[in-house]
Amino acid sequence: MMIYSLGLIGIAAFAITGVMAAGKKGMDILSITLLGVVTALGGGTLRDIILDTNPIFWVADLFYLWVSVSASIITFFLVRFVSHVLHLLLFIDAFGLSLFTILATEKTLMLGFSNPVAVLMGVVTGIAGGMIRDILTGRMPLLLGKEFYATPALLGAVVFTILYYHFPMHELNRLYAIGVIFILRASAIQWGLYYPKWLMYRE
Amino acid sequence: MMIYSLGLIGIAAFAITGVMAAGKKGMDILSITLLGVVTALGGGTLRDIILDTNPIFWVADLFYLWVSVSASIITFFLVRFVSHVLHLLLFIDAFGLSLFTILATEKTLMLGFSNPVAVLMGVVTGIAGGMIRDILTGRMPLLLGKEFYATPALLGAVVFTILYYHFPMHELNRLYAIGVIFILRASAIQWGLYYPKWLMYRE
Amino acid sequence: MMIYSLGLIGIAAFAITGVMAAGKKGMDILSITLLGVVTALGGGTLRDIILDTNPIFWVADLFYLWVSVSASIITFFLVRFVSHVLHLLLFIDAFGLSLFTILATEKTLMLGFSNPVAVLMGVVTGIAGGMIRDILTGRMPLLLGKEFYATPALLGAVVFTILYYHFPMHELNRLYAIGVIFILRASAIQWGLYYPKWLMYRE
Repeated sequence: MMIYSLGLIGIAAFAITGVMAAGKKGMDILSITLLGVVTALGGGTLRDIILDTNPIFWVADLFYLWVSVSASIITFFLVRFVSHVLHLLLFIDAFGLSLFTILATEKTLMLGFSNPVAVLMGVVTGIAGGMIRDILTGRMPLLLGKEFYATPALLGAVVFTILYYHFPMHELNRLYAIGVIFILRASAIQWGLYYPKWLMYRE
Repeated sequence: MMIYSLGLIGIAAFAITGVMAAGKKGMDILSITLLGVVTALGGGTLRDIILDTNPIFWVADLFYLWVSVSASIITFFLVRFVSHVLHLLLFIDAFGLSLFTILATEKTLMLGFSNPVAVLMGVVTGIAGGMIRDILTGRMPLLLGKEFYATPALLGAVVFTILYYHFPMHELNRLYAIGVIFILRASAIQWGLYYPKWLMYRE
Repeated sequence: MMIYSLGLIGIAAFAITGVMAAGKKGMDILSITLLGVVTALGGGTLRDIILDTNPIFWVADLFYLWVSVSASIITFFLVRFVSHVLHLLLFIDAFGLSLFTILATEKTLMLGFSNPVAVLMGVVTGIAGGMIRDILTGRMPLLLGKEFYATPALLGAVVFTILYYHFPMHELNRLYAIGVIFILRASAIQWGLYYPKWLMYRE
């Protein structure tokens, strides 16, 4: 039940960022909604295709589709009253990233895959929706930015995998791990946290 | 039989647009043919992967592959005699969009999926091939343009789903729905039809 | 055994090119490693999804994942001592392209698919990883460049398919075909080999 609610909140969060990112192009409500839906459902679709889970989550349960459509349409009308859209987009993206990474890690573990596959699927699922959004709207993918992005997702997925191994029944595991990702990523956005120079590429 | 022919025509139409779009880059005949093939088969491949239809349509029936290869090569040699290539590309894309959207909606319905899934798969299949083409060739996706693009596809898919529900055996359902999409999209290209301002994004 | 080793070498080669391509952006070690991994595993993942091979190769055997991670991290630290990075990238990419094209052609044939499907899957698998890398890092895909790229892959896949048909047990078939691709592509890079004008697009 908690997984289900968290999943829907993550879907809504990514749909909102899809609308915000697309909106700069002066697009119409339907194309924007489509981009919101693709952003929201894209990461989990890739996860389910790679893990060969059938049917794909939003085909099995249409409520995911309706939530992404509704969140997109509501955002379309509300976003004009919001200032600092780009800054807000980053934080909502961080929230979706946290939720998707941990839920995908947990789903992969529960399907019986090994720990490294679960961590990689968590990171890829968390990042993929936003990558698709950024490529379709011609933005620079957040992954390529000069702040922590993949790192919080990886740390959170590792933390969750360790907790899941030692306390498999603990209710709050996923909240701890989601918190790790969100706090790290939000700090990175706010204070530009990044690696020391020797861990950055120079040419 | 009619479905099969319409599918082949749609394949050829998208292959032609792939060649036309790639051609601006001064590429060689084989790379251009590859882009034509990927454009033509990409949308349906995504549809079959998401719906887990095995084998994928062009693996099951090689004729689709040969049609996309032939259409690409013929276009390669003929396009130099054509003026107004970009304008023509838009209309052929509109034709492929109409065919692919309706055939994917019908295939999804016939596989027993629910109406909303069928409509979404129709729109996504219709748009995906062209999106892949535009991303690979560095163009702005038509979806982001300032004319109706997703809207005709959605309306056509909805019209077809309603007709299919009420007159499941009617031969001409798909022609009516294809006509709805093509006429709306062609009008949008010709006269720049678009949404009223309150349904467009402003920031 | 030889297939396995060649596969791992190809994985490492593409991981190296992913790091080299991403590096220009001043990214951190983890994001770069992720791009190396996606470049290395992307083509084969697409192949396994289209052919519906379960589980996907790097889920079935984690060693592929570790090789791509290790190659990425080692490249990250070593690349700063290398000059002419871009030129080197092209040759390592040519090497990965040769290996992946032939291994994918062989895998598709061994799964019982027809020759044309095997050739197309070989070319698509060989090219896809590099395409994903170039799109994610905002480079012009090598396929669109003004040298042979798809052509050597296609010729090699055709050569391998013919050899496989006539001498199915011959150990060195794949080495011959890999050689065909690499020599053609390396010559194209070195001397700018390309098609005669009438096989190039002009508008």
